[in-house]
Amino acid sequence: MSKKLWGGRFKKKTDKAFEAFSRSVQFDYKLAEYDVFHSQIHVLALKAARILTATEAGRLMKVLDGILLDISRGRFKPDGDCEDIHSDIQNRVHKKAGKLSEKLHTLRSRNDQVAFDQQWYCLVQNARVEKMLLKVINSLNLLAEKYEYQEFIGYTHLQRAQVIRFTDYLFAWQRMFEKDAGRLGRYGHNLFAYLGAGALAKTTLPRECYKKALKQFMKRKGWKPKKTFLVENSVAQVSDRDFVIEFLSILAIVQTHLSRLAEDFILYAGKEFDFFDLPEEFCTGSSLMPHKKNPDFLELMRGATGKVYGNLTAILTVMKGLPLAYNRDMQHDKEPLFSSVETVKEELQILERFLPKVKLKTKNIEKALEDESLYATEIAEFLVMEKKVPFAQAHDIVGRLIRYAEVHRMKIRHIPVRILRTFHPGLEPCALEKIMRPEAAVSSKRSIPHRLPKLKKIKD
Amino acid sequence: MSKKLWGGRFKKKTDKAFEAFSRSVQFDYKLAEYDVFHSQIHVLALKAARILTATEAGRLMKVLDGILLDISRGRFKPDGDCEDIHSDIQNRVHKKAGKLSEKLHTLRSRNDQVAFDQQWYCLVQNARVEKMLLKVINSLNLLAEKYEYQEFIGYTHLQRAQVIRFTDYLFAWQRMFEKDAGRLGRYGHNLFAYLGAGALAKTTLPRECYKKALKQFMKRKGWKPKKTFLVENSVAQVSDRDFVIEFLSILAIVQTHLSRLAEDFILYAGKEFDFFDLPEEFCTGSSLMPHKKNPDFLELMRGATGKVYGNLTAILTVMKGLPLAYNRDMQHDKEPLFSSVETVKEELQILERFLPKVKLKTKNIEKALEDESLYATEIAEFLVMEKKVPFAQAHDIVGRLIRYAEVHRMKIRHIPVRILRTFHPGLEPCALEKIMRPEAAVSSKRSIPHRLPKLKKIKD
Amino acid sequence: MSKKLWGGRFKKKTDKAFEAFSRSVQFDYKLAEYDVFHSQIHVLALKAARILTATEAGRLMKVLDGILLDISRGRFKPDGDCEDIHSDIQNRVHKKAGKLSEKLHTLRSRNDQVAFDQQWYCLVQNARVEKMLLKVINSLNLLAEKYEYQEFIGYTHLQRAQVIRFTDYLFAWQRMFEKDAGRLGRYGHNLFAYLGAGALAKTTLPRECYKKALKQFMKRKGWKPKKTFLVENSVAQVSDRDFVIEFLSILAIVQTHLSRLAEDFILYAGKEFDFFDLPEEFCTGSSLMPHKKNPDFLELMRGATGKVYGNLTAILTVMKGLPLAYNRDMQHDKEPLFSSVETVKEELQILERFLPKVKLKTKNIEKALEDESLYATEIAEFLVMEKKVPFAQAHDIVGRLIRYAEVHRMKIRHIPVRILRTFHPGLEPCALEKIMRPEAAVSSKRSIPHRLPKLKKIKD
Amino acid sequence: MSKKLWGGRFKKKTDKAFEAFSRSVQFDYKLAEYDVFHSQIHVLALKAARILTATEAGRLMKVLDGILLDISRGRFKPDGDCEDIHSDIQNRVHKKAGKLSEKLHTLRSRNDQVAFDQQWYCLVQNARVEKMLLKVINSLNLLAEKYEYQEFIGYTHLQRAQVIRFTDYLFAWQRMFEKDAGRLGRYGHNLFAYLGAGALAKTTLPRECYKKALKQFMKRKGWKPKKTFLVENSVAQVSDRDFVIEFLSILAIVQTHLSRLAEDFILYAGKEFDFFDLPEEFCTGSSLMPHKKNPDFLELMRGATGKVYGNLTAILTVMKGLPLAYNRDMQHDKEPLFSSVETVKEELQILERFLPKVKLKTKNIEKALEDESLYATEIAEFLVMEKKVPFAQAHDIVGRLIRYAEVHRMKIRHIPVRILRTFHPGLEPCALEKIMRPEAAVSSKRSIPHRLPKLKKIKD
Repeated sequence: MSKKLWGGRFKKKTDKAFEAFSRSVQFDYKLAEYDVFHSQIHVLALKAARILTATEAGRLMKVLDGILLDISRGRFKPDGDCEDIHSDIQNRVHKKAGKLSEKLHTLRSRNDQVAFDQQWYCLVQNARVEKMLLKVINSLNLLAEKYEYQEFIGYTHLQRAQVIRFTDYLFAWQRMFEKDAGRLGRYGHNLFAYLGAGALAKTTLPRECYKKALKQFMKRKGWKPKKTFLVENSVAQVSDRDFVIEFLSILAIVQTHLSRLAEDFILYAGKEFDFFDLPEEFCTGSSLMPHKKNPDFLELMRGATGKVYGNLTAILTVMKGLPLAYNRDMQHDKEPLFSSVETVKEELQILERFLPKVKLKTKNIEKALEDESLYATEIAEFLVMEKKVPFAQAHDIVGRLIRYAEVHRMKIRHIPVRILRTFHPGLEPCALEKIMRPEAAVSSKRSIPHRLPKLKKIKD
Repeated sequence: MSKKLWGGRFKKKTDKAFEAFSRSVQFDYKLAEYDVFHSQIHVLALKAARILTATEAGRLMKVLDGILLDISRGRFKPDGDCEDIHSDIQNRVHKKAGKLSEKLHTLRSRNDQVAFDQQWYCLVQNARVEKMLLKVINSLNLLAEKYEYQEFIGYTHLQRAQVIRFTDYLFAWQRMFEKDAGRLGRYGHNLFAYLGAGALAKTTLPRECYKKALKQFMKRKGWKPKKTFLVENSVAQVSDRDFVIEFLSILAIVQTHLSRLAEDFILYAGKEFDFFDLPEEFCTGSSLMPHKKNPDFLELMRGATGKVYGNLTAILTVMKGLPLAYNRDMQHDKEPLFSSVETVKEELQILERFLPKVKLKTKNIEKALEDESLYATEIAEFLVMEKKVPFAQAHDIVGRLIRYAEVHRMKIRHIPVRILRTFHPGLEPCALEKIMRPEAAVSSKRSIPHRLPKLKKIKD
Repeated sequence: MSKKLWGGRFKKKTDKAFEAFSRSVQFDYKLAEYDVFHSQIHVLALKAARILTATEAGRLMKVLDGILLDISRGRFKPDGDCEDIHSDIQNRVHKKAGKLSEKLHTLRSRNDQVAFDQQWYCLVQNARVEKMLLKVINSLNLLAEKYEYQEFIGYTHLQRAQVIRFTDYLFAWQRMFEKDAGRLGRYGHNLFAYLGAGALAKTTLPRECYKKALKQFMKRKGWKPKKTFLVENSVAQVSDRDFVIEFLSILAIVQTHLSRLAEDFILYAGKEFDFFDLPEEFCTGSSLMPHKKNPDFLELMRGATGKVYGNLTAILTVMKGLPLAYNRDMQHDKEPLFSSVETVKEELQILERFLPKVKLKTKNIEKALEDESLYATEIAEFLVMEKKVPFAQAHDIVGRLIRYAEVHRMKIRHIPVRILRTFHPGLEPCALEKIMRPEAAVSSKRSIPHRLPKLKKIKD
Repeated sequence: MSKKLWGGRFKKKTDKAFEAFSRSVQFDYKLAEYDVFHSQIHVLALKAARILTATEAGRLMKVLDGILLDISRGRFKPDGDCEDIHSDIQNRVHKKAGKLSEKLHTLRSRNDQVAFDQQWYCLVQNARVEKMLLKVINSLNLLAEKYEYQEFIGYTHLQRAQVIRFTDYLFAWQRMFEKDAGRLGRYGHNLFAYLGAGALAKTTLPRECYKKALKQFMKRKGWKPKKTFLVENSVAQVSDRDFVIEFLSILAIVQTHLSRLAEDFILYAGKEFDFFDLPEEFCTGSSLMPHKKNPDFLELMRGATGKVYGNLTAILTVMKGLPLAYNRDMQHDKEPLFSSVETVKEELQILERFLPKVKLKTKNIEKALEDESLYATEIAEFLVMEKKVPFAQAHDIVGRLIRYAEVHRMKIRHIPVRILRTFHPGLEPCALEKIMRPEAAVSSKRSIPHRLPKLKKIKD
C-alpha cells in the first residue's frame, strides 16, 4: 500500500485483508477531476490566507493542472495500491512537488473533499442525463413524424380499450421523460459543491479566503461564478448524503419509465400483437433455436431496473440510523451512485438511436383497429350526446349489446336493425358505421388539442 | 356489495373473496374530499358543454356540497361494502339525487378520477409536511436559544473528533430539514391535479368547458386559479405514478434524517454519553425492570424507517414493467402513500413538542470537553500557523505526541517541557494551555460566520 | 389509556400523541392466542417453582382458558386504549382474578413474550400457507387433467420458441410452488417458540420448571411435546428477528412466482394471444368503457408484489445496525409480517378456486401452433441427427432458411424443393412435413419422462 | 466482438453500444469452471446417445480438461470481446478442436447452461460461506475463553438493563451465526444443478444418456454421485431464479447480524462506553485529526449492509412479473449474486481474525457494573421470592425506590434503613448488599444452564 494521509499514532501495520476491504480507489477514481478542483480552490484559499506564498501556490496549481490534463486526455490510471483517490492525487503531487506537497492538506479534511467531489460529480452527471433525456424525446419526435396520421390501439388492463393516435401514445413517453428532465433540472439547480467544512467543525480559514479563491478558480476556468459554494453548516455537509439519495430516486423514476417502455415495445414486437418491427441491430438470436430474433435490448433495459432500484435501497440502508457526523459506512454511497448513473446513461444513449428505427406494421394495426369493442365507449357517448340517454343507462345498454354479440358470435355491425333497436331505438346501423371508425374516434376527442411532433435543438 | 359503476356485459356474480381482495374503500376513503372536487368540476364542465342543464348541474352541486360538509365535519363514514370511494360517492349522490345521478359519470372514467384525487391529496399533504418541518426547525431554535453558549463534542466515526458549538450541532439538523422542506416546496410547486384524461383517450368534452368549469370551481371555493389543471397527455396522466414515487422518495429522505436524529439522541441520553436528559413524557418503562426509562419515542421513530423505506420499495415494485396505460396493479399505490405520509406527520408532530423539552447535562458535557484528544487538530494547526510546520509534518508530530501520552498514561498538559520539545521545539505548555480550551477551539473557526438561533413565524 | 405494565419510577404522564404513536394493540391483537399460551405455560412454571400455589395457578389457568375461549369464538375485541396485547390480556386477567393477577408477570418480561408469541404465530401461519400452496398445486392438476393432450406454445424472450405440452406449462408452476412449499416446510421444522429468556438475562426460574410446565401444557392441549422450547441464549432470543426475515423472504419468493403467473395469464387472456378464457367471477368491468372485461384479480395479485417486497425491505431496514438486545424499533416487525402473511394467503385462496375455471381457447392455440418458426429447432435437430450435420452448421442453415422465407413472405413448407436443397440436400418437403407437427415436437423430447397430473389428498 | 453462438437469420450487424450493454463476460467469467462441467457432462451424454463417437468425445473432454486446468491455475483470462462466458469457452474449444467444436452445442441451450452454472456456483459458495461462519464462531469461542469469568452489562433500548455474563453476550452472536449456518446448510442440501432442460422444452437426448454421463463425470472427478441432477420440469428450470433469491435472502440475514455486531463493537470501543480495545490493525486514522483511531472495519461492515440488501432488492425486482420462460432480463441476476457472496465472504474472513484480538477494558466494565440500577430487577425478585410480595407491587416499590435515589442524588446502598423500610419492611441494607453484586446477579439465573466456550474443529 502506498503512503497514507494518516498514521503517526499507529504502531501496528494495517491488516492486508482489511486494507483491501477498505480500499475505494478502484471506484472513486471517477472523482479524480473534482478532487483536483477541490485542491486547486484550496491552494488559492491558502494563498489568500497567506499560508502559502504566491510561489508555492503557483507551483502547486501547475502540478495540479498537470494532473487535470492527464485526466482529460485519458492518461490518468488510478494507483490500485492507494487507499482512495485523495491519497492517490496527494501522492502524485508529492512526486512532482516534493516537500511542498506536505502543505497541500493544511486545514482541510477528506470528509470535506469527499462530499465536495461527489456533489460536483452529481452536478455534472445530472446535466448529462438531462440532455440525454432531451435527445430521447427528440427520437420520439422523429418516430412520431413518420407516423403522424396513424391511429393506434389504446390499452388499459392490457385489454383493448379505445382508439388513440399513435402520436399520443409516443407523446405519453415524451411527457414522462419531460417530467423526469424537469426533476433533474430542479435537482441540479439546487445542488452545490460546498467548501470549508473541515472534518466536521469548520476550518480556521476565513470565509473571505474561500470566496476569493473560488472567484479566482472560476475565472481561471472561464466559468460563471453564479453559484456560491460556501458551506452553511459544516456538520451537515460532511454527514448528509441527501443529494445522493435524491439523485438515485430521480434515476429510479426514469428507470421505471424505461422499464415500462421496454415492456410495451416487447409486447408490440411479439408475433401476437405484431405492431412493431424492431431494428435487428438491437436484437439477438438464440444458441439453440435458429429462428429467434429476441428483443434483448428492451429486456436488458427492463431488467436493469433491478440494479437501479437496488442502488436506491443500498444508499438508504447505508444512511439509516447513522450517528453524526461522518462515518466510514458512507464510503458505500459511491458504488450505487456510479452504477445507477452509468446504467441509465447507457440505456438512454442506446434508446436514442433505437427509437427512430422502430417500424410500424401498419397492416396489422389497421386490422386490430377493426375490433368493434374499441368503439364501445363511443357508442355509449353517442347515446348520451345524440339520444339524451343518461350515461349510466347508456353504459348498461352497450354492455348488454357487447354480450349479445359475443354470445351470438357476430359483429355488432351485423346485428339486424330490429334487434339493435331492442337495445335502444336510436341504435341504427348507419350511425354505428359512422361511429366505429378510427378517425372518427380520435377526432371526436377535444379535451386536449391535437399536437404535432416538434424537434428540439439540443446543444452538445 | 353495493352498486358498481359497471356490469352490463357480465353474466356471473363476482366471487366474494375476490371482491374483498379487490376492495379499496377501506383506505381510499381518504380521497373522498378530492373525489367530490373532481365531481363538482366535472358537473360544471358538463353544464358548460350543455350536457347538463343549469338546474341539473345546480342540484348535483348541492348534493355534492352536502357530502363535502359531511366530510369536513367528520361525519363521513365510508361504506365498507363499496368497491371504492368513487362508487361510494356515486351511491350517495344516487340516494339524494335519484335518476339524475346517472348523468354524473358522463364522459369521465375512474382512471381519470383516481389520478386527479391522488394528485390533490399529495398537494395537500405535501404542504402539511412542509409546515411541520418548519415547526420542528423552530423547536430546534428554541432549544438552541437555551444553550446558545454551550460547547459540545463533535463526533466522526462515533469517536470524539473536535469541539463544536452545541448550536452548530442543532443547526445541522435544521440544515437537513430546511433542505427537505425545500424539496417538498419544489415538489408541490410542480405538481398539478389534472382534468380531462378520460379512461386514457381524452374525452369529447372541449378543453374550453374544463377551463370554464375550473375557473368557476376555484371562484366558488375562493381559491386563486393560479394553476392550470388541464391534462397535457391523457395516456401518461392515467398511467404514471411518478408523483407518488417522488413524494415517497422525499419522505424517505426526511425519514433518513429522523432516524439519524433518533440514533444520536438515544446515544446522548444513555448512561455512557449522558449528555441529554429526555423528557419523561416521551419515554416508557419496562414490565420487568423497574429502573428503566427507555427512549421509546426515538426508537420507534428510528424503527419507522422500515415502514417508510418499505413503502418506497413497494410503489417502485408495483410500477416496474407495467404496460401502458392504467393497470389495476396501480391500486397498490395508495396504501404505501398514505402510510408514509401519516407516519412522517406523526413523527414530526411529536418531535416538535419533544425537542424543546430536552435538557442538557452540562456538567457531563464540560467533563467530556476536558478530553485532550479533542484538541489534537488544534495543536497541529498551531504548529502550522504559528511555527510554520508543513501540515503533513504537524499531523505526524501530534500523532506521535498522542501515542506518547497514551503509552505513558499521562495528560499532554502534564508532559514535561523537555520531552514536549523533543516532538517540536515550539511546543510549550503555556501555548498548549491556551489552545486546549473549548472556547478557543470554536472561536478559531472562521469558514462559517457564527449564527444565532432565530425563530420563524409559521402561519397555521 | 388503560393500566400499564410499568410506571413506578415515572413522575409525568405520558404524552398523548406519543402514546398513540407507540400503541400496537391495533395490530398485535393477532398474537392474543399465543400470548395466552405463554401466560399459561408461565403459570405452570411458577407453580412448579412454588411461586404460585396450586390453587392460585388453577385459578389463573381458568381465567386464561376463558380468554382463549373468547378468542376461539371470535368474541375477543382488543381494547384500543391499551398499549399492547400483553397489557390488554393482563388487564383481563386483573378484571377476573383481581389481586392474584399481580403475580402473573413474576419473573418474565414482555421482551420474552413478544418473541415467543411471534414465533408461535409464524409456526401456525407457515403451516397454513404451506397447505394453501398444496391446494393450488391440486388446482393446477385439475386444470391439467382437463387439457391432458393439449400442445401449447413455449415462449422465451416473449417470442415463440418451441412447442411444449400444456401440462408441462402447468407443471412449471407446480414445480415452483412445490419448491416454495418445501422451503416453508423446512422453515417450520426449524422454528421454535422459546421460553425463559427474561428481559435479556434469563430468569431465576430453574430450567426444570419450564420443562415440566411445558409438558403439562402440551398434555393439557393434547399436543405432542415433540419440540423442546427452552431457550438456548437469552440475549439472542429477545434481540433477533431472523425468523421474521426468513419467513418474509420465503413469502417474497412465493409472491415472485405469483406475479409471474399473473403476468402470463393476463397476456394469454388478452385479444392478441387469446389462449385463455378467464372466469368472469374474477374479472371486473370499466366505469367508462362498457365492453371491458378486465383481469383484475391477476393484476391485483401482480401488484401485491409491491406490498410483499416492501414488507421485506421494511423488516430488514428495522433490524439493520440495531445494538443488542431488545430495542423498541423492533415493534415495527409486526405490521410487515402480518401484511405479507395475509396478502399471500388471500391470493392463494382465490387462486385455488380461480385456476380450475380457466378455459383454453384451443382453436386459437392450434392456429398458433401452425407457426412454422416453432419448429426451427426441430429442423436443425433433424439435420444433426439424421443428416449428421454438426449442430453449429445446422443452426446456421435453418437461420438462413428462416430469413429466406421471411424475405419471400412464404411458408417454409412452400419453398420449392430445389431451393430447399440449396440450403442442405437433406431438406425435403415430406421430412419437413413430418417434423413440423406439434405432436412430433413434444413426443421427440426425452430428457424428462412424460408425466400425468395427479391429485393429492390434503387434510384440512 | 468475437464469434457468437447465433446469427444465421440476421442481416445487420449488432449495434456497438448495445453489444457492450448486453455483454456479461466481464462478470459471468466467474462461472467458467461450472460451464466447463456442463460441457463435459454434455459431451458424455452426446457420446452415450451416439451423437459423438468415442474419439470425438475423448478429444473434446481433453480440450475441456485443458481449460479447467487453466482456470484452476489462475491462467484463465476472460476474453472481453466475447458476449458471455459460454461463447468464450466455445471459442476456446474451437481454437483447439477446430471443426469438431461445432458439435459441442448439439441439443443444448445457453438457457440450460446458465441455470446449471449458477446453481453449481451457489452450491460451492454456499458451502464456503457456511464454513467461514463456523470459523467466526470459533473466534468467538477464543475470545470467550479469555474472559470466561467476566460479568458484563446487558442493554435493552441501549439503556443499562441487567448484568449478564460476557460469555453469554458472545454466545448471542454465536447463536445467530449458528442459525445462519443452519439455514445455509439446509439451502445447500436442497439445491441441485440440473441437466437437460434445453431452451425450455427439454431435449431429445434420452434421460438415460444424461444419467450415464453424470455417473461417468462424477467418477472421473472422484465425487460421490449422491445427488441426481436430472431436471424435473424444463420450463421452470430455465425460468426460475428462486435459488438466487433464497441465497441472497440468507446472506441478507447474515449481514443483518454482522451490522448489529458492528454497531455494538463500535459503541463499546468509543470513549463513552470504553469497554473494548480494538486491534489497531483493523482501524484507520484521520487525514486532519492526528489523534483519531477509527473503527473503520466495523463501520465498513455495517455500511456493506446497503450493498447486500440492495442486491436482494435487485434480484426480486428483476424477477417480478416476468413471463415464462427465460427472459434476457435475467442476466441481471448475476452481479447481485456475486456481489453479496463476495462481500459477506470478505467480512467473515476479516472478522475471524479480528475477534480474537479484541481486548476487554475490564476496569471500565467493573466500574459500570457498580451502577445500582443494573440490580433493580434483582431487588424486585428478592421481594417476590423472599418476602412474598406480588410481582406487580414489587415492581412498583423498586420503581419508587429508584426515583427516590435519583431525586436525592444518593446511592440506594446509602439510603438510611428507616427510609428504606418505608418502601418495604423487608428491604434491609445487608440484603441489598448481597443482591447488588455482579456474581450474585448472574449466578441466580437458572433458566439456561451455564455453558463453557468450546472450540470446534473445522476441516479446510
